[in-house]
Amino acid sequence: MTIKIGILGYGNLGRGVECGIRHNPDMELAAVFTRRDPESVKILTEGVKVYRASEAPEKKDEIDVMILCGGSATDLPEQTPEMVKYFNVVDSFDTHAKIPQHFDAVDAAARKSGHVGIISVGWDPGMFSLNRLYGNAILPGGKDYTFWGKGVSQGHSDAIRRVEGVIDARQYTIPVDSALEAVRSGSNPELTTRQKHTRECFVVAEEGADLKKIEETIVHMPNYFADYDTTVHFISQEELQREHGGIPHGGFVIRSGRTGWTDDNNHVIEYRLKLDSNPEFTSSVLVAYARAAYRLNKEGKSGCKTVFDVAPACLSPLDGKELRRSLL
Amino acid sequence: MTIKIGILGYGNLGRGVECGIRHNPDMELAAVFTRRDPESVKILTEGVKVYRASEAPEKKDEIDVMILCGGSATDLPEQTPEMVKYFNVVDSFDTHAKIPQHFDAVDAAARKSGHVGIISVGWDPGMFSLNRLYGNAILPGGKDYTFWGKGVSQGHSDAIRRVEGVIDARQYTIPVDSALEAVRSGSNPELTTRQKHTRECFVVAEEGADLKKIEETIVHMPNYFADYDTTVHFISQEELQREHGGIPHGGFVIRSGRTGWTDDNNHVIEYRLKLDSNPEFTSSVLVAYARAAYRLNKEGKSGCKTVFDVAPACLSPLDGKELRRSLL
Repeated sequence: MTIKIGILGYGNLGRGVECGIRHNPDMELAAVFTRRDPESVKILTEGVKVYRASEAPEKKDEIDVMILCGGSATDLPEQTPEMVKYFNVVDSFDTHAKIPQHFDAVDAAARKSGHVGIISVGWDPGMFSLNRLYGNAILPGGKDYTFWGKGVSQGHSDAIRRVEGVIDARQYTIPVDSALEAVRSGSNPELTTRQKHTRECFVVAEEGADLKKIEETIVHMPNYFADYDTTVHFISQEELQREHGGIPHGGFVIRSGRTGWTDDNNHVIEYRLKLDSNPEFTSSVLVAYARAAYRLNKEGKSGCKTVFDVAPACLSPLDGKELRRSLL
Repeated sequence: MTIKIGILGYGNLGRGVECGIRHNPDMELAAVFTRRDPESVKILTEGVKVYRASEAPEKKDEIDVMILCGGSATDLPEQTPEMVKYFNVVDSFDTHAKIPQHFDAVDAAARKSGHVGIISVGWDPGMFSLNRLYGNAILPGGKDYTFWGKGVSQGHSDAIRRVEGVIDARQYTIPVDSALEAVRSGSNPELTTRQKHTRECFVVAEEGADLKKIEETIVHMPNYFADYDTTVHFISQEELQREHGGIPHGGFVIRSGRTGWTDDNNHVIEYRLKLDSNPEFTSSVLVAYARAAYRLNKEGKSGCKTVFDVAPACLSPLDGKELRRSLL
């Protein structure tokens, strides 16, 4: 018997989940829900229907886990507590500062309905968070470092697009090699924002635009660029599409700490992701946690969970015996 | 109220656990048990007593978790099922092929006594296993790579010491950089044993020994060295002690796999450990899982567990709310 998955929201993330289900033979896509006109949404999986988002509650008996693929700014704060009334759900809520209140809202609704809701699943928050937790537990008194990139930051690309005279833009966040090496050496350096990352921008400008002014506006933009060493390259729309069409990302979580009676020995734990497609990797993590949501609910659990609360074995299609034999 | 820890076996690992407890303010060392004469064992923690191993059962009400620091060959197969009759226990059983039968023996005894026994805790098995499991769950259809080193292999050092004319030896296992790079590139290479690791040996020979013959014996030794490119250096006992006295180790677990409807995008997950002291890091993992054993038992759980069965949050002294706020 396969796990029946629903997808709410069919953008990059929703399509990534659809692809992820195809890689997991114990799951099947049951339905896709959209706020657009369902007739206008063409999905990849043959024979699966697209419904209006408002029709989701009617399908509650046909779906084991609903994967919520909306955005963190306005979609998920409403959708996750609402959908967990009808389904086990998984979301990728990633506004770090608002996780506590999102957790509380989902937890209250999930306990009432008897479902499991796993929030903030992906790579950061998600796999990076797990590695911070494991690192902190094993090396107490150590130091945490997170580096992002090389990868495309959607928020920073959008900020550039709002500059006068800019048609399109792509921004890469790049970790500074020498900072990474210093952290790996175990020297526990104090690093400023500027020392950890640089920002590289590829910008398509309107014909006749004041390029010097655009560059100045970008590199001095508060919050986004002012605290970084930023480079700006002006390129054509064709080059942008040809060379910068992908959505790669990744990064590093490093924990460094000492052990021994008088802190004699140093240890470095490094977790690194190198992702060709940020949304497809995030989707793959969502799909694995959908399996966990299904199982936890089958065991009689309910309420809101995060990656911290889920035993690793819950993520795998293999049973305990096979896991111990093949992966331990 | 602190968690009271007992240590059974006071070698490198037991002393590492003692140091680990000192780094975790929610724990205290309650007692050390040894098969040697307790009078002959001097520990680091003031005011804590050393008892005979045979006295352990009498102390069952004074210890929350017993950390078993014996060897996997002969100690743990007997000690873990025996000690779990009286205590929650954690061990670092690392004979991969015998984990299933060890699990069954510990599970039967632990269910009967109502205790929790977490086995095969450390870094491999342990943290490396966790990363294999997470990687397999997120990127199904991908490929796993494990590299060890640079680090001292005790078993290989011992094998060299048994060669005629050898007084002492230290063997380093070294991952091959070009193989690591090929794996990181996402090209999913097929690698032979020889392509993945080299072995470097530092040997102290008896005066007048046939060095050529010792070198030949080492590099052609079946199972240990014959399948590797091995280098042998002859050095003095003083140099061995001065330059090769530490027990560093570490390695890499890399999962590489593709996502997308037609496997369009590649992803690489890399977990790396760089450890100054193999036993002290293993001990630090044991101590974190002792916290989990204590908590799981408090929740009413019993039986044998591995790192796969323990939710990450169980390892941390912080509560769920604080974990979500600070590490998610």
